[in-house]
Amino acid sequence: MDFPVLYLRKGAERRLKAGHLWVYSNEVDTRRSPLTDFEAGSQAQLRASNDKPLGTVFVNPHALICGRLISRNATTGMTPKRLTDRLETALKLRDRVFPEPWYRWVYGDSDGLSGLVIDRFGDVVVVQISTAGMEAMKEAIVRGVQRLVHPEAIILKNDGKMRSVEGLPSYVEQVEGEPVDVLQVRENGVLFEVPLSGGQKTGWFYDHRMNRARLQQYSPGCRVLDVFSYAGGWGLQAAAGGASSVTCVDSSRQALASVHHNAALNGFNNVDTLEGDAFEVLKGLADDKQKFDIVVLDPPALIPRRRDQKAGEQAYARLNQLGLRLLERDGLLVSASCSMHLSRDKLVDIIRGSARKVDRFVQLLEQGYQGPDHPMVPGIPETDYLKACFVRSLTEFL
Amino acid sequence: MDFPVLYLRKGAERRLKAGHLWVYSNEVDTRRSPLTDFEAGSQAQLRASNDKPLGTVFVNPHALICGRLISRNATTGMTPKRLTDRLETALKLRDRVFPEPWYRWVYGDSDGLSGLVIDRFGDVVVVQISTAGMEAMKEAIVRGVQRLVHPEAIILKNDGKMRSVEGLPSYVEQVEGEPVDVLQVRENGVLFEVPLSGGQKTGWFYDHRMNRARLQQYSPGCRVLDVFSYAGGWGLQAAAGGASSVTCVDSSRQALASVHHNAALNGFNNVDTLEGDAFEVLKGLADDKQKFDIVVLDPPALIPRRRDQKAGEQAYARLNQLGLRLLERDGLLVSASCSMHLSRDKLVDIIRGSARKVDRFVQLLEQGYQGPDHPMVPGIPETDYLKACFVRSLTEFL
Repeated sequence: MDFPVLYLRKGAERRLKAGHLWVYSNEVDTRRSPLTDFEAGSQAQLRASNDKPLGTVFVNPHALICGRLISRNATTGMTPKRLTDRLETALKLRDRVFPEPWYRWVYGDSDGLSGLVIDRFGDVVVVQISTAGMEAMKEAIVRGVQRLVHPEAIILKNDGKMRSVEGLPSYVEQVEGEPVDVLQVRENGVLFEVPLSGGQKTGWFYDHRMNRARLQQYSPGCRVLDVFSYAGGWGLQAAAGGASSVTCVDSSRQALASVHHNAALNGFNNVDTLEGDAFEVLKGLADDKQKFDIVVLDPPALIPRRRDQKAGEQAYARLNQLGLRLLERDGLLVSASCSMHLSRDKLVDIIRGSARKVDRFVQLLEQGYQGPDHPMVPGIPETDYLKACFVRSLTEFL
Repeated sequence: MDFPVLYLRKGAERRLKAGHLWVYSNEVDTRRSPLTDFEAGSQAQLRASNDKPLGTVFVNPHALICGRLISRNATTGMTPKRLTDRLETALKLRDRVFPEPWYRWVYGDSDGLSGLVIDRFGDVVVVQISTAGMEAMKEAIVRGVQRLVHPEAIILKNDGKMRSVEGLPSYVEQVEGEPVDVLQVRENGVLFEVPLSGGQKTGWFYDHRMNRARLQQYSPGCRVLDVFSYAGGWGLQAAAGGASSVTCVDSSRQALASVHHNAALNGFNNVDTLEGDAFEVLKGLADDKQKFDIVVLDPPALIPRRRDQKAGEQAYARLNQLGLRLLERDGLLVSASCSMHLSRDKLVDIIRGSARKVDRFVQLLEQGYQGPDHPMVPGIPETDYLKACFVRSLTEFL
């Protein structure tokens, strides 16, 4: 194929050569290749300042990330055939690891498909497109999905906040099958139903699946507190694992209604909910001298942006201290973070500091990441964001 | 109890307050409390330079780590009762996580028992004492073990290289039961037998157990290469998981004899061995254009000391490049490191660089640590050493 050429400034190829796939607009030599010459979603050949070809990219002249590497071969663009091949390569991995079609099928850059996320919910497939390049491949994506898994329904949930950055409209559209408004999820032997609209992201956070599976083995006979519970992902896994009681805390009434619905769906009659701000609820429980055997803290990103770093870290520290205070003498804290801006080492250090502050001896038993349906790519730090620390807390031990 | 006082220099309490348990000899105020006043293995009260009590310690005036915190309570020393309590607290965790008595029961500092390691092999218990403080508690340890698990045999495998540093003699002594010279291990459904003498460390590396369990799910139908195989810990797990063939590489003839013995023990007839230097063997396989679906790299610590950092990192890079070259187009690399001096981030970066070097697109699917029978303690970085990266390698993909 014959592509127009996008030239980088001197040295700007370094990150790409190290493994990353993104080009920032300030890295483009706009004298040689004005971004205004490119249409959003078009493809181009990428070259270093010394003219050396680096590969092909999707271009969006309006976005900060103005280039996304499609291939390291400078004559290989994205085609329906190549897109379907990558969908198939991604599928092969998931089918190898998961026995049932409930997983993230495509995880953007990590699957060589920057700007595309696809989740499978049994016979329902939910597609999220977040870049102009992928939007240009929309029909090929739908056809590829149809051909590879023959789903009963395909939903384009194209309402993510990144779309406006790319100059794309926000919409949700079902392109195949009978109208779907509830997604059914089967995770580690537990059933969930979550509403498609009003739900979070594609409707379900598959990323913590393996971590929630770990929770089951610790749960027999335990009183479990699931903080920031959403639809009960952690709490109901604990119930399935034999918890004696589960209390889910969330500020969303709709989320807690989901918890009750899902508890009933699985025949669990020992699941309770508390509505309110998590910090306030935890303080209240501590004031009431309540104790739990397991406390799960899975907050939304408390450091949404770099400038929130300090306040966010303090929030994690407060939260972990509160969690530790609510534990029995020999209890388990599950401390998670989905903040990309909070490193794993920093989270462990926050747990260390929190434990010292409230005078607990803590043992870090296990650490979890995203599951293998959210692969990380070394060289693309943005693909590594999820952390789950399983921490045994002992009082009067040392 | 009335203990002699060990005074720290100004500011030397910081690391202890942050969670660590060790006192270095250059941190002691030897003017106020000459180390020569203390006997090896005795107990002392530890105080900051401002006289504030910090806890109690085991003292060894001859060792670089001359103090090991027993308790943060300055009047609470180590007694047979307290030692047994800690053994019991450690046991409770393992019994919660593992269905059978094959695990590391005590992991030193992480279990509040600095200088003590205990492994369980069914009815056989292997105890390793590495400090003068613990040596002084030897009888209490044996009695505690007897009382808590009633083993058929107890072996003191006190021949670790740290003992000479502590001024302790090297010996192996069976203090209970019929003479044992072969240890039987059951791990993730696979049986192993390893010789007690001539074997490595306590005889078995339980630390990778959870990582080896993960390997099983990737193994069906795969040709697997297990490099630095020792007795076949990884390779035989792959065979149990349904691998079509397994090749174990090790430089030790005794280790490879163990592989064959253990393969037969489990009825596996598709396990082969190659004796030789791993780097040489891998090069030879690459020259022969051999390919595998899974390559496991679990070398001994290639960075034994800080001064080996650079050479060690280069060795890891060479090894990972060789491993990647031997993989099929869609293959799995399991890259492990037990070097405390190699950070997890650095290992991932070495994998990144190796993949770029040999032109592979790699996805980091899972990352493993030591199992929960080797808990880490945040604040004691020395307790965090084991890494296992599960890396999917794709060629001609991007």
